[in-house]
Amino acid sequence: MQALRGTGSRISHTDTQSASTSLPACNRSRCGPHTVKSPRSRANPQKARSPHSTRRKSAAIEQEQMIQSAPDSLLRQDVDSPDSMRGRFEHVIRQGQDSICAAVERLDGGSFHQDSWVRPGGGGGISRVLQGGNVFEKAGVNVSVVYGSMPAEAYRAATTQSNGSGKAAGRVPFFAAGISSVMHPLNPFAPTMHFNYRYFETEEYEGLPGRWWFGGGSDITPSYVFPEDLKHFHGLYKDVCDRHDPAFHPRFKQWADDYFLIKHRNERRGCGGIFFDDLMDRPADQLLAFSTDCINSVADSYLPIVDKRKDSPFTDENKAWQQLRRGRYVEFNLVYDRGTTFGLKTGGRIESILMSLPLTARWEYDQHPAEGSPEADLLDACINPRTWV
Amino acid sequence: MQALRGTGSRISHTDTQSASTSLPACNRSRCGPHTVKSPRSRANPQKARSPHSTRRKSAAIEQEQMIQSAPDSLLRQDVDSPDSMRGRFEHVIRQGQDSICAAVERLDGGSFHQDSWVRPGGGGGISRVLQGGNVFEKAGVNVSVVYGSMPAEAYRAATTQSNGSGKAAGRVPFFAAGISSVMHPLNPFAPTMHFNYRYFETEEYEGLPGRWWFGGGSDITPSYVFPEDLKHFHGLYKDVCDRHDPAFHPRFKQWADDYFLIKHRNERRGCGGIFFDDLMDRPADQLLAFSTDCINSVADSYLPIVDKRKDSPFTDENKAWQQLRRGRYVEFNLVYDRGTTFGLKTGGRIESILMSLPLTARWEYDQHPAEGSPEADLLDACINPRTWV
Repeated sequence: MQALRGTGSRISHTDTQSASTSLPACNRSRCGPHTVKSPRSRANPQKARSPHSTRRKSAAIEQEQMIQSAPDSLLRQDVDSPDSMRGRFEHVIRQGQDSICAAVERLDGGSFHQDSWVRPGGGGGISRVLQGGNVFEKAGVNVSVVYGSMPAEAYRAATTQSNGSGKAAGRVPFFAAGISSVMHPLNPFAPTMHFNYRYFETEEYEGLPGRWWFGGGSDITPSYVFPEDLKHFHGLYKDVCDRHDPAFHPRFKQWADDYFLIKHRNERRGCGGIFFDDLMDRPADQLLAFSTDCINSVADSYLPIVDKRKDSPFTDENKAWQQLRRGRYVEFNLVYDRGTTFGLKTGGRIESILMSLPLTARWEYDQHPAEGSPEADLLDACINPRTWV
Repeated sequence: MQALRGTGSRISHTDTQSASTSLPACNRSRCGPHTVKSPRSRANPQKARSPHSTRRKSAAIEQEQMIQSAPDSLLRQDVDSPDSMRGRFEHVIRQGQDSICAAVERLDGGSFHQDSWVRPGGGGGISRVLQGGNVFEKAGVNVSVVYGSMPAEAYRAATTQSNGSGKAAGRVPFFAAGISSVMHPLNPFAPTMHFNYRYFETEEYEGLPGRWWFGGGSDITPSYVFPEDLKHFHGLYKDVCDRHDPAFHPRFKQWADDYFLIKHRNERRGCGGIFFDDLMDRPADQLLAFSTDCINSVADSYLPIVDKRKDSPFTDENKAWQQLRRGRYVEFNLVYDRGTTFGLKTGGRIESILMSLPLTARWEYDQHPAEGSPEADLLDACINPRTWV
């Protein structure tokens, strides 16, 4: 079934300002008509806006349209075939979303809520969120596909290679597809995990040839250090990397340690994992296989740790420390995370982008853990990244 | 008593990368030797840093030095006299900090904790924080004085007038003094208030003449709309403005409605107040008098409202809504607030800058208040600013 079939909507390749590749999607409810409803048809009516509103220019034009169930494909069927790299990557992330959400539901006992949307210019997304679960305070797995064009500023935020666009005043046409997820457990001894895998294409722009690249990573953010948990997580991703290139793990582990730095505190948000971006140094088939392997390893790398820790007894102090670390998570995501800042600048679906934020977080003034405490050990591991495997 | 007298430290006018004008300071414990202690002499030792650390360049050199008690003046006594605009402004903000903290303590029954610091290049700050009080979950009042030079990027974040520095690769020497405060009450019917008043000077730079300007504002962030509370707050600041220039209030009220916009949500963080920046269109004496009047009106504009609401009965739902609105507060401060982003970029004292964040905050996926509810009324007031007086 095609997106929006029978709704009368026409998907055309327009210039959209919207992109949110830090998001996930899912396709559990495949059939039934895809009724288009406006996300504004709720309470809090958007009355006439202040003339001084500085909201993202023309974002209203490309506002997402919520649909009742996820389409089989978020691609523009008229131009992109299932056999293209776009089609193959979408297939991988949709499958990944299904299998990971199913595994999380088995562990938690709760169910994901699903929201699907499309955009007039093509593309769309599927957000799955499990909030207030038995094991997870908040877990989300998003998939999105974006056909758009972005201002040079957003392009620079999306890639480490500005590709000459630094001085360009125009807009860079792009395609992006990605899966993104953050899972925040309730128990302070169970770590948070994040992963994000994405495929980008930019079209020819001001004489520069079009490009494509892969990016992504999986990282873990515990509030307490259990070396065996971190050995498991890092070890599994080292195995994944080694299957594709022995040079990958040292490089991508270091990249994660660099990327997840909260610069203003000189501490990382957690204990890293792997991170890579702008990967285009070998055939796309090989990078697709690597990304697929990474996505398919999410559940095994992480859920057994949560299963082991989810019922650990804890004190109010343990919980308060977890909440403080979640405050650090918020700081990283809102100030530094490339996907989040890219999404906020370009008019992505806010609820999906900020789904990565924890349900609750805490900021205490000038809090320092006692010397020699487990909390100080975690902080040290965030300041001085360790070699776990 | 001079800052650092007897410590052997020499204050010289060096190029400092550090500035945090969103901060406050206080001078309650005036005497006693000013012992210099390193803020790193705590737990969580900063071991050898990763060579890949991208922390703010050379920030360690200009790291603040904590001192035991606040000096009478944070100015460089060798170059700045108490009669200069710098000296007069410092006097106003120090007095303001004293009187506002005293009034908050009378209402709360708790006490502010005070931290004082100086920097090798001159200047320093005094942070006062009351956390876990009877009425306030977290309240902070900071004063800071900065002698520094900032990268062009930070200069642009600090002012709406880039003054030709957009292309400059060098560093702009500046002086900044400011008082800044955020007060988050426990009771969800009692609003949060923020104020910040600052005085800036930039020195001659690449042929451009030196400039000075005043900036600041007071704004209120309720979780529930009580029109009489908002009339009181806005009315009092309208009176302050009208005493100095009848054109001020319409302009500065609008400026606040524009400034406190969370762009990615197209809603404001609260119900505004007044905001101004780059004010230099009349003699500095007049702007100092206006700023003084604004600072001296903080307690009367706000504390009676908290006093009236602090014991109101509330439900878990009321508290959860307050926590969601505090999440919005975090979003605004970390993503848009000029003082916060300026401080994070330039190496200000992090604990003082982020003191503005609430003790606790909450993010629920896709939460929308029920139509016609008090929560929807507040949200509407944040989306469509109202005229309260």
